[in-house]
Amino acid sequence: MSKEQEIKTPLGALGESGIHQRIRGLAIEPRAETVLGQGDDAAVVRPKTNQEVVITKDLMVEGVHFDLMYSPLQHLGYKAVVSNVSDIVAMGAEPAHLVLGLGLPPKFTVEALDAFLEGLRQACKTYGMDLIGGDTVSTLRDFFISITAVGYVEPEQKIAQSGASKNDLVCVTGNLGAAYAGFLMLDRERRIYLENPDVQPDLSDHAYVLERQLKPEARMDMWQELRKKGIQPTAMTDISDGLSKSCFTLGKASGLGVRIDLERIPIHPGTLKVAEELQLDPYHLALHGGEEYELLFTIPASSYNKIQALEDITVIGFMEEDPAAFRLIDSSGKVFPLEELGWDGFRKDE
Amino acid sequence: MSKEQEIKTPLGALGESGIHQRIRGLAIEPRAETVLGQGDDAAVVRPKTNQEVVITKDLMVEGVHFDLMYSPLQHLGYKAVVSNVSDIVAMGAEPAHLVLGLGLPPKFTVEALDAFLEGLRQACKTYGMDLIGGDTVSTLRDFFISITAVGYVEPEQKIAQSGASKNDLVCVTGNLGAAYAGFLMLDRERRIYLENPDVQPDLSDHAYVLERQLKPEARMDMWQELRKKGIQPTAMTDISDGLSKSCFTLGKASGLGVRIDLERIPIHPGTLKVAEELQLDPYHLALHGGEEYELLFTIPASSYNKIQALEDITVIGFMEEDPAAFRLIDSSGKVFPLEELGWDGFRKDE
Repeated sequence: MSKEQEIKTPLGALGESGIHQRIRGLAIEPRAETVLGQGDDAAVVRPKTNQEVVITKDLMVEGVHFDLMYSPLQHLGYKAVVSNVSDIVAMGAEPAHLVLGLGLPPKFTVEALDAFLEGLRQACKTYGMDLIGGDTVSTLRDFFISITAVGYVEPEQKIAQSGASKNDLVCVTGNLGAAYAGFLMLDRERRIYLENPDVQPDLSDHAYVLERQLKPEARMDMWQELRKKGIQPTAMTDISDGLSKSCFTLGKASGLGVRIDLERIPIHPGTLKVAEELQLDPYHLALHGGEEYELLFTIPASSYNKIQALEDITVIGFMEEDPAAFRLIDSSGKVFPLEELGWDGFRKDE
Repeated sequence: MSKEQEIKTPLGALGESGIHQRIRGLAIEPRAETVLGQGDDAAVVRPKTNQEVVITKDLMVEGVHFDLMYSPLQHLGYKAVVSNVSDIVAMGAEPAHLVLGLGLPPKFTVEALDAFLEGLRQACKTYGMDLIGGDTVSTLRDFFISITAVGYVEPEQKIAQSGASKNDLVCVTGNLGAAYAGFLMLDRERRIYLENPDVQPDLSDHAYVLERQLKPEARMDMWQELRKKGIQPTAMTDISDGLSKSCFTLGKASGLGVRIDLERIPIHPGTLKVAEELQLDPYHLALHGGEEYELLFTIPASSYNKIQALEDITVIGFMEEDPAAFRLIDSSGKVFPLEELGWDGFRKDE
């Protein structure tokens, strides 16, 4: 069979039960908590004594959250898991199970499904999760992904968004703005391609930001590191909606304001390079770009020394008593209001 | 404000946070197990000691699973919950929580969202569930619903599909074919309307089958009744894919065959009437129509007297030793093979 043929097997050839078989056939090790996995009317899991169960759901829609023109399906499968893992980890919980919902349009092929599932399988392996069930349906036009993730947490280790206190330090993991920088690069190439399909895209200079956009990781490593060092954040969220929105999220939930020291915001050289090429303010990318899957959290000021010792965590500000005070301070000491900008799929005018 | 204006508020006027507020504002009583509901990165629930957690997900896509032309949105909201509750109950578990995923296209209005949510709220009330979280996104074209339901079960009361034994009696709740009959009536009216929009549909003779299609109920009452009488089914599934498919599901999971006594299959007079009008075999509707949300279950033959005393449960056959034997027997004693027919969204040729 030629490669041309290989990439064109329509999903109808499998039918619904064939698709289910393909999903059930993924070699994903079941977890100890899984009593009944895929195949029954519902899945059954059994938390350890005293554990609470953490549940989140993320939807991703073709043409809105991703473009199949530049999102390889394997990466997309990986990323769909990561965005859920990030929410579980942001509660201080351990990710454990996935429930997979897929809406597949007629244009989808068996090969495309397999690539997507391979990414999902890899992500399950990376984060120690299993796949316990789901639903797969046909759609008229668009591909969408609906993943529900389940995790476990001991009650005393749970981290809500609402637990920050006045003067708590505000910390971030990793660096910010890179995923958005990656999106901007892909979008530029897409437009060039649409204008002239003969131009070969050259993205080799932007490998870091592209990886952050296309195949990000959730910061389970940071959550594990914090636990190891005995640091219990007072409040936490992931930065999937961008830093500015996430600051408002933590502040509002905790009834406090937030002050961010602009110069402390960690930005990767790859992101700076994109900002320079596109003549954008790198701080704009770092403040308002989304899909970061980094963690934003608060700790008591007394934990400053402990946090300093950890790589890849940066203190960028502190919680203010005034619940209306969301501010940025620059290197000269000048104070600006922090704007709550971010992407709103329901308001876009394009 | 005139009615004309009232029904035309675009969703963009609310934006994402406005939509979230609307969903959070639904007056749904939180359950005792809910530690952290809507609003954080993820929801947190706490099962009672020794309880297992049951999780299911159902997707419904506009144009595939429903047509907004004849599905009132309030009913659709109700039904979306019911289809999940049915899966939870089919495990012998108590439905408890919902996680709501919505993909909303630009044409969707605030009023349409409110109608949908009102149906969802009513279903939560009927089945004693709360809404603990979710995700709402915009789509380019189609409306879709992705609901995850969570329930609880004591391990010894859990009912898998795989537990049936040879000679166990096969039972169904309620009557079969009505939901499909309702669909056929709606579809006929839709076609008449498309041909001639001036013809007023007259569906008044078909109230029962329409209700079964548009606003079905899950058989939580039957599950409660079985518990009350101390009857523990050996295997159970819901009949959402139709009786024939569900017989194969239970049989294959249990490594057995199934024999169904055709004449015992309960069919409502309203369904018989539709079959007559459309000149269809009513047994075809009852065997292969889907979306029933009735329960198909097996019990040991020794429980026959107990089951006989229960209203709305009918013994329709028994489990056969031969795992390849799926058969129907008619009133004359003639035996036919049971065909595994049912709807497959990936194979339709329309």
